[in-house]
Amino acid sequence: MNSAVPSTEPQGTPSPSDGLLDFPASSALKLEPHLPPPPPSPAATTTTDTTKSKTSSTKPFVTLTFATSLDSSLSLAPGVRTTLSGPQSKAMTHFLRSRHAAILVGVGTAVADDPGLNCKILSPFSSSQREQHPNQPRPIILDPSARWEVSEKSKVIQLARLKQGLGPFIFTARRVEEVPEERRGVVEGMGGKYVHVEGLKVKGDGEGEGETGSGESFAWADVLRTIKEEGLDSVMIEGGGSVINSLLALEQGGEQELVDSVIVTIAPTWLGAGGVLVCPPRAVGRDGQPAPPVRLRDVSWHPLGEDVVLCGKILR
Amino acid sequence: MNSAVPSTEPQGTPSPSDGLLDFPASSALKLEPHLPPPPPSPAATTTTDTTKSKTSSTKPFVTLTFATSLDSSLSLAPGVRTTLSGPQSKAMTHFLRSRHAAILVGVGTAVADDPGLNCKILSPFSSSQREQHPNQPRPIILDPSARWEVSEKSKVIQLARLKQGLGPFIFTARRVEEVPEERRGVVEGMGGKYVHVEGLKVKGDGEGEGETGSGESFAWADVLRTIKEEGLDSVMIEGGGSVINSLLALEQGGEQELVDSVIVTIAPTWLGAGGVLVCPPRAVGRDGQPAPPVRLRDVSWHPLGEDVVLCGKILR
Ligand SMILES: NC(=O)c1ccc[n+]([C@@H]2O[C@H](COP(=O)([O-])OP(=O)(O)OC[C@H]3O[C@@H](n4cnc5c(N)ncnc54)[C@H](OP(=O)(O)O)[C@@H]3O)[C@@H](O)[C@H]2O)c1
Ligand SMILES: NC(=O)c1ccc[n+]([C@@H]2O[C@H](COP(=O)([O-])OP(=O)(O)OC[C@H]3O[C@@H](n4cnc5c(N)ncnc54)[C@H](OP(=O)(O)O)[C@@H]3O)[C@@H](O)[C@H]2O)c1
Repeated sequence: MNSAVPSTEPQGTPSPSDGLLDFPASSALKLEPHLPPPPPSPAATTTTDTTKSKTSSTKPFVTLTFATSLDSSLSLAPGVRTTLSGPQSKAMTHFLRSRHAAILVGVGTAVADDPGLNCKILSPFSSSQREQHPNQPRPIILDPSARWEVSEKSKVIQLARLKQGLGPFIFTARRVEEVPEERRGVVEGMGGKYVHVEGLKVKGDGEGEGETGSGESFAWADVLRTIKEEGLDSVMIEGGGSVINSLLALEQGGEQELVDSVIVTIAPTWLGAGGVLVCPPRAVGRDGQPAPPVRLRDVSWHPLGEDVVLCGKILR
Repeated sequence: MNSAVPSTEPQGTPSPSDGLLDFPASSALKLEPHLPPPPPSPAATTTTDTTKSKTSSTKPFVTLTFATSLDSSLSLAPGVRTTLSGPQSKAMTHFLRSRHAAILVGVGTAVADDPGLNCKILSPFSSSQREQHPNQPRPIILDPSARWEVSEKSKVIQLARLKQGLGPFIFTARRVEEVPEERRGVVEGMGGKYVHVEGLKVKGDGEGEGETGSGESFAWADVLRTIKEEGLDSVMIEGGGSVINSLLALEQGGEQELVDSVIVTIAPTWLGAGGVLVCPPRAVGRDGQPAPPVRLRDVSWHPLGEDVVLCGKILR
């Protein structure tokens, strides 16, 4: 289905009976320059130099990726699951997931969508049978006040139980011991965990970095350092609106170089007013003047089904 | 210049010394399926059937065309001229103007930008010299309360005087005799005129069709019929935000089939909150339910410089 209407279809509805998606190698090749170094394939015995060379940085390789309408909406409204982009774009998202060590979303998305956050692409390593890709990204949820009521029913937990995905890392400003024990048990049972990240009190005047609902926020540099410290060399930041806007607002200032690669899918529809928008607040530079808007360089556009995929780097 | 910063450069600044733009025939060919039938070339002696066959309709061929940022902004703010798309896209806009009998903008754009509204593309009919394209579109300004203070200094009047463009048709809900005589003189001196179109009183509750600042509005069907009655077989609707949103809101309802072709240029930048947005208000269908969002069909995407051009038709 390829229309921008509220969708009742659960995100994991299978295409063939095994639910695995296929992303053509020719399309994958075009994305290659925009991706972190490939992890060694399960068959490979030698570690490549490219993966090693990255490990010295204090932050992981960051890919910002999401799908919007022409009017920059991620969804019709928070919690209204919106089928925006077509099946090819969906397969691309899952291909990207196979190429990142982690995938990050805000708690708004976790609560609204109950997302799976796994990789459903076909394994390219097994030619005889249809198998799921062995590289599963680590789900990371930014949940400063630990308000996500993760349970055995949460999709991400169900998928981890089926060994079709990994247990989530939940970043919170609470002390881990303060998180209800039941939730910790569920998450840890699947190899996930709560991770304490120092929170910044947000002023509530609309000027705090990454200002959010709980009144507490993380500095993005802290989030990324923590990801790296967890041994995760690359992360795909997928949404939702607040997460993306707080990241783009920082890039606008140009003072922090956080995002390495941008991959945006645009679907040919206008969702109209009231959606969850990607539209960063305008930042003010050090000189007190409005910071220049974020612009991309090394841009390439790839039509994919009815959609287009934009790849680029942030111009600094 | 290709960056999304406020631009102080007047829109008509020449590239070569004659200011004429070149749009390659190969690019033009890709747009052909999305354009109204070509007017007969000045050299042609026979009228083609395609142009004739259209004249029976009660509305002109309508192309909706504009350039936005990734976050669907037309400009940083009303009146802040924003260089959004690159030189190739600008040349494309002028090519499109050569292929339409009229070009329409709202009075907001006329007041904020003092636009030229002419066609600065090189003539393809003269091989020996650089000459301006002979097809100049008729500028149409929607100005229900006749608030645009058009004068000898207005760019559109200056260009008409230089025979580099046509005098404007200004659609107003006022009786033509009520418009200050001086302004009428300026406009009529250049072959333009004020045209009375019946205005609808707008309720002011946000639900009036094409609700605007003056509290008076035109029905789009009336605007298009009037254009056709003026002998103009095709019109390119260029902006700004209110004009585009009021048109898309109607198309959302799907009750009126106004737009024949959509050509949108997207530049790889996020202008951030506070811009002039393309984002239609959500329409309610006849059944009282939210109308489905506007989606395009027969979509094609054409990378052009750093930008992408989206061509399509509205899915009904
Ligand atoms: N189309 C797509 O590609 C796509 C992808 C993902 C999501 N979505 C859609 O996006 C919508 C959800 O977006 P949303 O804006 O409501 O939620 P969101 O961005 O997923 O989550 C926002 C919350 O995450 C926390 N957060 C964000 N930035 C933070 C930071 N720097 N530090 C600490 N915490 C931070 C805050 O939690 P607190 O409120 O607790 O402070 C914030 O309110 C859903 O409708 C979903 O379907 C679409
Ligand atoms: N990037 C691009 O492609 C592009 C193209 C064009 C313009 N722009 C930008 O857009 C901005 C201007 O946009 P805007 O929204 O302020 O102004 P606008 O859309 O150009 O003009 C709006 C005004 O036009 C009149 N109008 C609109 N629809 C009408 C209808 N159905 N019936 C009668 N009157 C109607 C109303 O006049 P009253 O207020 O008198 O009622 C309305 O307020 C400028 O910053 C300009 O640079 C960008």
